[in-house]
Amino acid sequence: MDTTTPSYDALTRTFTRLHHLEHLQAIASWDQAANMPPAGNEARAAAMAEMGSLLHRLLTDPQLARELDGAEAEPLSEPQRANLREMRRHWRQSNALPETLVQRAVLATSRCEHAWRTQRPANDWAGLLPNLREVLAIAREEAEALSQQAGLPRYDALMDRFEPGMTAAKVDAVFGDMRRWLPGLIQQVIHKQSSETVVPPQGPFPVAAQRQLCERVIGLLGFDFNAGRLDVSTHPFCGGVPEDVRMTTRFADHEFLGSLMGTIHETGHGRYEQNRPRDWLGQPLSESRSMAIHESQSLSFEMQLGSHPGFVAQLIRLLDEAFGPQPAFEPTNLHRLMTRVKPGLIRVDADEVTYPAHIIVRYEIERPLIEGEVEADDIPALWDAKMAELLGLDTRGNFKDGPMQDVHWPSGLFGYFPCYSLGAMYAAQWFAAMRRVTPDLDAFIARGDLAKVFDWLREHIWQPASRWTTDELAQRASGEPLNPAHFKAHLEARYL
Amino acid sequence: MDTTTPSYDALTRTFTRLHHLEHLQAIASWDQAANMPPAGNEARAAAMAEMGSLLHRLLTDPQLARELDGAEAEPLSEPQRANLREMRRHWRQSNALPETLVQRAVLATSRCEHAWRTQRPANDWAGLLPNLREVLAIAREEAEALSQQAGLPRYDALMDRFEPGMTAAKVDAVFGDMRRWLPGLIQQVIHKQSSETVVPPQGPFPVAAQRQLCERVIGLLGFDFNAGRLDVSTHPFCGGVPEDVRMTTRFADHEFLGSLMGTIHETGHGRYEQNRPRDWLGQPLSESRSMAIHESQSLSFEMQLGSHPGFVAQLIRLLDEAFGPQPAFEPTNLHRLMTRVKPGLIRVDADEVTYPAHIIVRYEIERPLIEGEVEADDIPALWDAKMAELLGLDTRGNFKDGPMQDVHWPSGLFGYFPCYSLGAMYAAQWFAAMRRVTPDLDAFIARGDLAKVFDWLREHIWQPASRWTTDELAQRASGEPLNPAHFKAHLEARYL
Repeated sequence: MDTTTPSYDALTRTFTRLHHLEHLQAIASWDQAANMPPAGNEARAAAMAEMGSLLHRLLTDPQLARELDGAEAEPLSEPQRANLREMRRHWRQSNALPETLVQRAVLATSRCEHAWRTQRPANDWAGLLPNLREVLAIAREEAEALSQQAGLPRYDALMDRFEPGMTAAKVDAVFGDMRRWLPGLIQQVIHKQSSETVVPPQGPFPVAAQRQLCERVIGLLGFDFNAGRLDVSTHPFCGGVPEDVRMTTRFADHEFLGSLMGTIHETGHGRYEQNRPRDWLGQPLSESRSMAIHESQSLSFEMQLGSHPGFVAQLIRLLDEAFGPQPAFEPTNLHRLMTRVKPGLIRVDADEVTYPAHIIVRYEIERPLIEGEVEADDIPALWDAKMAELLGLDTRGNFKDGPMQDVHWPSGLFGYFPCYSLGAMYAAQWFAAMRRVTPDLDAFIARGDLAKVFDWLREHIWQPASRWTTDELAQRASGEPLNPAHFKAHLEARYL
Repeated sequence: MDTTTPSYDALTRTFTRLHHLEHLQAIASWDQAANMPPAGNEARAAAMAEMGSLLHRLLTDPQLARELDGAEAEPLSEPQRANLREMRRHWRQSNALPETLVQRAVLATSRCEHAWRTQRPANDWAGLLPNLREVLAIAREEAEALSQQAGLPRYDALMDRFEPGMTAAKVDAVFGDMRRWLPGLIQQVIHKQSSETVVPPQGPFPVAAQRQLCERVIGLLGFDFNAGRLDVSTHPFCGGVPEDVRMTTRFADHEFLGSLMGTIHETGHGRYEQNRPRDWLGQPLSESRSMAIHESQSLSFEMQLGSHPGFVAQLIRLLDEAFGPQPAFEPTNLHRLMTRVKPGLIRVDADEVTYPAHIIVRYEIERPLIEGEVEADDIPALWDAKMAELLGLDTRGNFKDGPMQDVHWPSGLFGYFPCYSLGAMYAAQWFAAMRRVTPDLDAFIARGDLAKVFDWLREHIWQPASRWTTDELAQRASGEPLNPAHFKAHLEARYL
């Protein structure tokens, strides 16, 4: 083939190949959570490990390094150059760690996570500790290796895997500011809400009706069921591939709001995936920008849109049709139900206002853990102090609803937690930008006309995908890089 | 590693690797039929093609040929030697055809099968013909290449892919004999049944109740739901992996017997897969022996056991619980419903007695097609003549329920059809052998005690897997190689 960009062309073929193999990995991974019977686990794990090492071999082929260097000198268009930048990022992450360290990490995290599944319900912190020490030791080694290779501080180097370009210095500034106003805001909101009466919904809510309700709401939110599904799994997630997005939720017949809002959350992830740029699928340019940007989509759907009083009013008719009318389905009451603020022990159950406090607690523990300033043994004391300080809760001795509640640390996912709150901030920033373009956006939403929202997200977030760095994406979309003031303003406007 | 069998050991590692990758392929393939939304098709096809060529590359690595030769000289145990024989068979089949021919075959069969999906309902034989000529031309090239390489006649070489060791000479003898007695037997059975009254079941039969019924019956038949599932797809099949078997069925609320018997059929395939020898999983020795032996398991379950009057009587209680009692659910009546014989146009809807006639028609056309004695254009005239002769049916002009009804020829699967009837013959042979060991087998079945059946199948078919050649498997299991007299005796005993 005659071309002026032979190295770049070879790289695109390799990444297309990776994309096809990752397709099978993604479907098998969804299947594992949504379908697989228990006895299938061992064989599936072996198959996934085989694919993992195959993909790793493809990305560590020395030929790739030569092609990446060769492509730099080739006459590339601007998006091709952006694609090359993202290719290099993938390559760097796959080649940064020595094979033996990768294998030790897989073993240690599998062991720790597996044991955690029974230790958590048993509140067995002492049992977790030896495994967690080992996971932490390996995470520190990874941080050190990645840090040296990328020229980044250690925690930044870990965060870079999920949120390229984000630094602990920025997170410190953003979370440090939030730390000053959040506890006061929580108290104000609780005080204000204490005088409001809220009628609780009366169940049961049959699962079949809940499922139909969720499908109708997802449809209103523009999810393309021709290119995706909604299924059930223990832990809701959004997986699959852009051409076939697999969202999951879970149902319990005594409660419907958790499933519904969870499903709306996943729909934000799902639409981002379904609307990544078609022409570039298979190339790193087409991938979602980062974890925080992905979370900004799920939270745009769940919090900005799903809990918007105008959208809530739209839901009433669907709730009446699903479960029959009842006093709790009055718009103001339903909105109050959705926006009830109450400090609690569990992050994934937290409301929009107290959620960032859970993230601050984790960030302020995991960063010094990685930097070597504190040890795994110190976690409970730090946890207790910070939960008391930020949320006024006594967590002493309750490890299972305390530092053992999340899978992240047993799995070695240090550097991930900040993305959740950064996502909430970006979501508020996107809606502020939309309101500058469309000052009567809230009236559109209240009429059930969501096209303005989806068109903005498609143009500014979904279609650009990884073409720009995160800062540039935010700048182009909203005129500024991350600005947490929008999140504060959103909380004050909605809750005060 | 210090070993006296380095080549053999290297081969086992390669085949374990193939096994892990094929696991993902199998799950994705099941998902494609059971879950995938329509817009996911193109990306899935690309992913599957990528995996197909990866597996092909692994099996055509020149290193493998050297290791196969090296292993022949190594001190192997008897099962290791059998495993090596099966490894070589896989290798031979992957290496027999030039890459360009493989690619042309994929293109031609995809095109033909894709067009067939709309041409069949439109009865458009003329539209199918150009594509089918192309598919046939390529199948003849494949047959020629395989024939030269394996030293087998051309049709035998194609059949060898599905039924190793089977020859057209044997099929000629077996089908030639059956051809002489089958039409007469069909007439006798129809005459006998014409004086029997049969009460038809009264629907509707709610799909949820049908599904529950199927799951209970599958459970009685020993399928392990801890290591498998039952789902719904347009064309029922049994897929997945031995540790996680995925069976499918389909439901229509006006009729339950088709789903139920289809599900019992797939359960036979499923139990074979679930009971392949654990210690050898990942190695070719552990694979199912052949397509006819696989079909002998589904037909052991569906025909020998599922339509056994003693088993049918066991079903009544379950039917009553699923749909409420009704006159049709009287044991003799239900058995008559299950064993009704009526010549029809469609193979997959055919009863046990007329089914072999459909296979003879196809075999007597596809063999001369491959040998170059007739052309694709000749198919309808041959079809009409043979259907009239064997089943007394006029098929002229009805292509869609005639030679266009099966996907096999548009997909290039020449040499497959005989396996269905060979499977029915083996199934009858297994039950005759069981009755020699357990003369009161029918009394056990009538009591709902199926352990004798399952234990025999486990010991003689499932656990041996591919350890012996098919002839030796049959010899060890039943004291003789394929003997179609058992099938004739079974039909006469049940239907006359």
